[in-house]
Amino acid sequence: MSGNSIGKLFTVTSYGESHGPAIGCIVDGCPPGMALTEADLQEDLDRRKPGTSRHTTQRREADEVKILSGVFEGKTTGTSIGLLIENTDQRSKDYSKIADTFRPGHADYTYQHKYGIRDYRGGGRSSARETAMRVAAGGIAKKYLKEQAGIEIRGYLSQLGPIKIEKVDWTIIDSNPFFCPDVDKVAEMEAYMDALRKEGESIGARIEVVATNVPPGLGEPVFDRLDADLAHALMSINAVKGVEIGDGFDCVNSKGTQFRDEITPGGFLSNHAGGILGGISSGQNITASIALKPTSSLRLPGRSINLQGEAIDVVTEGRHDPCVGIRATPIAEAMMAIVIMDHLLRHRAQNINVQSGLPVLR
Amino acid sequence: MSGNSIGKLFTVTSYGESHGPAIGCIVDGCPPGMALTEADLQEDLDRRKPGTSRHTTQRREADEVKILSGVFEGKTTGTSIGLLIENTDQRSKDYSKIADTFRPGHADYTYQHKYGIRDYRGGGRSSARETAMRVAAGGIAKKYLKEQAGIEIRGYLSQLGPIKIEKVDWTIIDSNPFFCPDVDKVAEMEAYMDALRKEGESIGARIEVVATNVPPGLGEPVFDRLDADLAHALMSINAVKGVEIGDGFDCVNSKGTQFRDEITPGGFLSNHAGGILGGISSGQNITASIALKPTSSLRLPGRSINLQGEAIDVVTEGRHDPCVGIRATPIAEAMMAIVIMDHLLRHRAQNINVQSGLPVLR
Amino acid sequence: MSGNSIGKLFTVTSYGESHGPAIGCIVDGCPPGMALTEADLQEDLDRRKPGTSRHTTQRREADEVKILSGVFEGKTTGTSIGLLIENTDQRSKDYSKIADTFRPGHADYTYQHKYGIRDYRGGGRSSARETAMRVAAGGIAKKYLKEQAGIEIRGYLSQLGPIKIEKVDWTIIDSNPFFCPDVDKVAEMEAYMDALRKEGESIGARIEVVATNVPPGLGEPVFDRLDADLAHALMSINAVKGVEIGDGFDCVNSKGTQFRDEITPGGFLSNHAGGILGGISSGQNITASIALKPTSSLRLPGRSINLQGEAIDVVTEGRHDPCVGIRATPIAEAMMAIVIMDHLLRHRAQNINVQSGLPVLR
Amino acid sequence: MSGNSIGKLFTVTSYGESHGPAIGCIVDGCPPGMALTEADLQEDLDRRKPGTSRHTTQRREADEVKILSGVFEGKTTGTSIGLLIENTDQRSKDYSKIADTFRPGHADYTYQHKYGIRDYRGGGRSSARETAMRVAAGGIAKKYLKEQAGIEIRGYLSQLGPIKIEKVDWTIIDSNPFFCPDVDKVAEMEAYMDALRKEGESIGARIEVVATNVPPGLGEPVFDRLDADLAHALMSINAVKGVEIGDGFDCVNSKGTQFRDEITPGGFLSNHAGGILGGISSGQNITASIALKPTSSLRLPGRSINLQGEAIDVVTEGRHDPCVGIRATPIAEAMMAIVIMDHLLRHRAQNINVQSGLPVLR
Repeated sequence: MSGNSIGKLFTVTSYGESHGPAIGCIVDGCPPGMALTEADLQEDLDRRKPGTSRHTTQRREADEVKILSGVFEGKTTGTSIGLLIENTDQRSKDYSKIADTFRPGHADYTYQHKYGIRDYRGGGRSSARETAMRVAAGGIAKKYLKEQAGIEIRGYLSQLGPIKIEKVDWTIIDSNPFFCPDVDKVAEMEAYMDALRKEGESIGARIEVVATNVPPGLGEPVFDRLDADLAHALMSINAVKGVEIGDGFDCVNSKGTQFRDEITPGGFLSNHAGGILGGISSGQNITASIALKPTSSLRLPGRSINLQGEAIDVVTEGRHDPCVGIRATPIAEAMMAIVIMDHLLRHRAQNINVQSGLPVLR
Repeated sequence: MSGNSIGKLFTVTSYGESHGPAIGCIVDGCPPGMALTEADLQEDLDRRKPGTSRHTTQRREADEVKILSGVFEGKTTGTSIGLLIENTDQRSKDYSKIADTFRPGHADYTYQHKYGIRDYRGGGRSSARETAMRVAAGGIAKKYLKEQAGIEIRGYLSQLGPIKIEKVDWTIIDSNPFFCPDVDKVAEMEAYMDALRKEGESIGARIEVVATNVPPGLGEPVFDRLDADLAHALMSINAVKGVEIGDGFDCVNSKGTQFRDEITPGGFLSNHAGGILGGISSGQNITASIALKPTSSLRLPGRSINLQGEAIDVVTEGRHDPCVGIRATPIAEAMMAIVIMDHLLRHRAQNINVQSGLPVLR
Repeated sequence: MSGNSIGKLFTVTSYGESHGPAIGCIVDGCPPGMALTEADLQEDLDRRKPGTSRHTTQRREADEVKILSGVFEGKTTGTSIGLLIENTDQRSKDYSKIADTFRPGHADYTYQHKYGIRDYRGGGRSSARETAMRVAAGGIAKKYLKEQAGIEIRGYLSQLGPIKIEKVDWTIIDSNPFFCPDVDKVAEMEAYMDALRKEGESIGARIEVVATNVPPGLGEPVFDRLDADLAHALMSINAVKGVEIGDGFDCVNSKGTQFRDEITPGGFLSNHAGGILGGISSGQNITASIALKPTSSLRLPGRSINLQGEAIDVVTEGRHDPCVGIRATPIAEAMMAIVIMDHLLRHRAQNINVQSGLPVLR
Repeated sequence: MSGNSIGKLFTVTSYGESHGPAIGCIVDGCPPGMALTEADLQEDLDRRKPGTSRHTTQRREADEVKILSGVFEGKTTGTSIGLLIENTDQRSKDYSKIADTFRPGHADYTYQHKYGIRDYRGGGRSSARETAMRVAAGGIAKKYLKEQAGIEIRGYLSQLGPIKIEKVDWTIIDSNPFFCPDVDKVAEMEAYMDALRKEGESIGARIEVVATNVPPGLGEPVFDRLDADLAHALMSINAVKGVEIGDGFDCVNSKGTQFRDEITPGGFLSNHAGGILGGISSGQNITASIALKPTSSLRLPGRSINLQGEAIDVVTEGRHDPCVGIRATPIAEAMMAIVIMDHLLRHRAQNINVQSGLPVLR
């Protein structure tokens, strides 16, 4: 458990650098008997993969996942599942210039401090390339949750720099390059991104993720609360700087009577809490929001130092996303799926025989 | 690891209900040879304890901690440290009315769903009473970090409902009941809280926590990033609905050139990232911010259901904090201390022999 | 997880020194709704406690356990259970002589090397006194296993020095001071121990533990096999130097046709494997055996060094067991119970919906 | 942590079935800056690999390991190391007959009970094929321990069925097919194995593993003792039924004066304890012994049942080892290396600044 694992019972452990031969992960704890093929995982990988529009990095990766174990005759066997994606479009020479420089806002400097050595090609292990494995592993969780528990997890881009969405139409999210749920904002976003690209700049974004039909009872007080584990999982995504559950920071200026979600025999009257009370799911939708910082890789020069400690100007010439938030929706979904899956299993372990005597309210 | 433990190498495991005989915890992993007495821990416990001003709950608890093991002749021995606080002011009869009702916005409903049984007195395990043990355990981490690594962790209230602080004067934080660092806002806060109490309402708050002098290199990619573990620890505090690292959600509408913290041989030119790059500490101040929701326990009636599923009105008559955020500053400090302590030990384990060849910049 | 915890889902974390104010533990993961009182745990504590016959240490400890949390109105609530036993008969002055000496065969020397400091009174943390908490925690597991799953865990002394038992009569085990199941050997053991005590010597022992009615399917390949976790738990008991599952070392000179336990529709034809195949319980009795070394605390002088590195003779004058194996039976039962309980919960988490289509054979 | 991981800080997580496309593992926690190539790992893999003599299975696997991550320009980077071995000689059709039968003494029956499904080809996940990854991962630990700490870990076969070795000559171990250290027993073993093979039988074995030059202080009381973790790791190897530390079961009939290892300023006078006192390494050689049962896969028919619960006779026709113990020496070495490596890192984390004031005695 040296940092590359997440989950207690549904555990994902990953490896791989941006420009190494391959990236991969092991998913341990998937229940047996679930139908699973590579195609099941490919769908979300394709949603995340680079190069599908002019608004993301032009690196071309097929991101074809192979299942190496844990599946027999099309079904999971309960043993650990090895997943592998070969890297195919590494242009490592693009990076030779940064071998002894530290790009501002990147992990170059901190990796050097921590390890005294780093694979500088494309950020090495700190590259968002590793998130492909999160999406693949999350795909297993998503499938199980949907088929076995009726839980669905979906996300969307709720803000791109200054542009905030005003409505959520789930049907259009996958038909524009931004995972934007507001059809009226898509053109505005396209224009904004085109201008940004010309400028050489990057921009932040906000993503919303929602889980529906979650049973009440998931989450382990007092430290492994469901919200705490979601915060951990979502904050572990590259470039994320903030996590909110439900109304998040809006609660700071809310009063108790406004914020407490009143209950009636027919259901809850609101969901400011984001479906979690005392760290345990209430049965309402679980909602979380994350903030992603603007990419630091820019062709506009930035001040930094080199390995000798001297002042230099850094210009990034590799292929990069001008808004990492754009491709982050499937990643955020995957992380929420992994956490909910883990807690579904943890809850079963201890409480499978519980009769609460209470109705499930939404 | 069923939810009541936090930390991989510096591990805190806790127990205790609001109205049980005692609360306690075990701190495992403290290095040997550190001077430690109960008085060292009492200081922060006194900062957190209830009943010290009219703005917090009137429950009177001395919160006197006992060290039961792991310290010999005034020094830690490296073995597990048992801590205990007896509950002395339980008025359990105040709670008999809520035995079969579910207070809106509380964990009553979700605990019942999860476990089918709950200690309803004062919220039982879901009460913020358990945070006393976090403060005691965090006190051990704080002392070690300060004495052995020069790291200091301090927090303050940065917003109380609509009132935002405008400056930070560290010297006044402990001399007002709010942990407010802006001397010009204290009177305003007092008036606001007095009015709120008359109204029967509660309000949210925002807390800021800062760690100074943290060495670069702490944090384990890719999942146990320092920011991810901070998010987990801070979100696990009762009533917290949002966590930010550095500029947090402000990054959404920031551009890359603004947000990336440029580096010079003399130091960083800004700290939007909050001292963490790629999940690893950079040597700059680590800054985090949390949002705490308004208490749901109000004497203004709220709609809910009872154990029979019937509609009822809930009025809370126990003693409660009208703003849980007020006492949360030492708790947030404690959680940050526990996480940084854990990562200091984890970093040593793998990287003790590393020579980075880089200067430490702030 | 710094060494003082065991179990993944049913987790026991302990603290306490031989001559500190108290010892205690936290049991995390017990399912809710089980009736539990202190008397339930006291029974096994009384079986383990010192001073009940002339053959064990004369230290007098009531070993009265208090439940501090996790139980409400006589039932477990699913939250962490805090247990505490106060130390009442510490004669610390007996130990002042050994403050700067290292008793051969004891942990004095290794604790000093590891931590640079040690609570030398009665061995401090390395004393078998901590096993009282194992027995208390194991009592919770035993009760759950028996009531909820029909699993029983019992042990006995199978060899005391040169005296091997020849038959197992479960009804007499608790009616002699040795947990000996062979009524014909009790007098021989008494005479042997009396002679040993006069001599000033100590002796080793072998304990057998058996779990009956365990469902097939418990154990997590490939590392957290049920036998591997049993080996870990049993070897963690003070003085244990060997662990066997089923026939253990006798398999070395066995042939495949002898050793493989053949199966018929009516059941298994033998149980050389000790109820575990491929790390997973088969439904047969789970049998394990442990070897306990003779106590090193003797009044016969032993060569050693002191803190200054000088040669000295060590004579132990405190109160000690001439055969630590005698009181080890309830401890071994407790450890097996903790492991099986943990694996019962782990198995449920992943495989609760499995239909194997196979009969349960014994 | 669902069973396929071992180690807390130096963590190995593995996947793969006997007849799937590949087996693999992730090694997390290796310190950065160590030179590492595939050749470093191949040496032990070649010692373990099948088909190198007539005394082991005739399956031909090159067992060529690929390093997929965590190494850059020939040095470890501190990030997770992905290892992969492709399966090349699967003759899955050999196994079609056992699809609905349960070989006695194998995990077929228990896997079916646990998961309700199993990859029956060659035992699937329960095959000793997975131990190749243990050897590869252990190779990393061995290299680090040797180069950075001077610790060496070596093993040998100490008993093959009735044939016990009488002397240990380290120089001949790798020059006979049995890892036998007694040159006078090799011919006897060859004859024994030849006869056994004709008979269609299998036989058990005993392996000894020794770590030299281990620093005092490794091991975390009270549960994660070094001996307890060794017992866990060694018992997790396929076919192991017993584990001893030091003299092991011989302690049962030993007296205290014989067994306690006396200390002089010049060193210890004996090592009955196997280099571990109170769960912590003493600086002496760490010695462990394991018992491996005879293979259950035999061409001599054995009684069992099929999926329909009917009585059948099972004859195994695949390629198998008549003595699994023969190839187990490098596996046992690997597991000991992983455990000692893990504890070296854990010890550093908490105790790096300790000055014990004591000499290191051997």
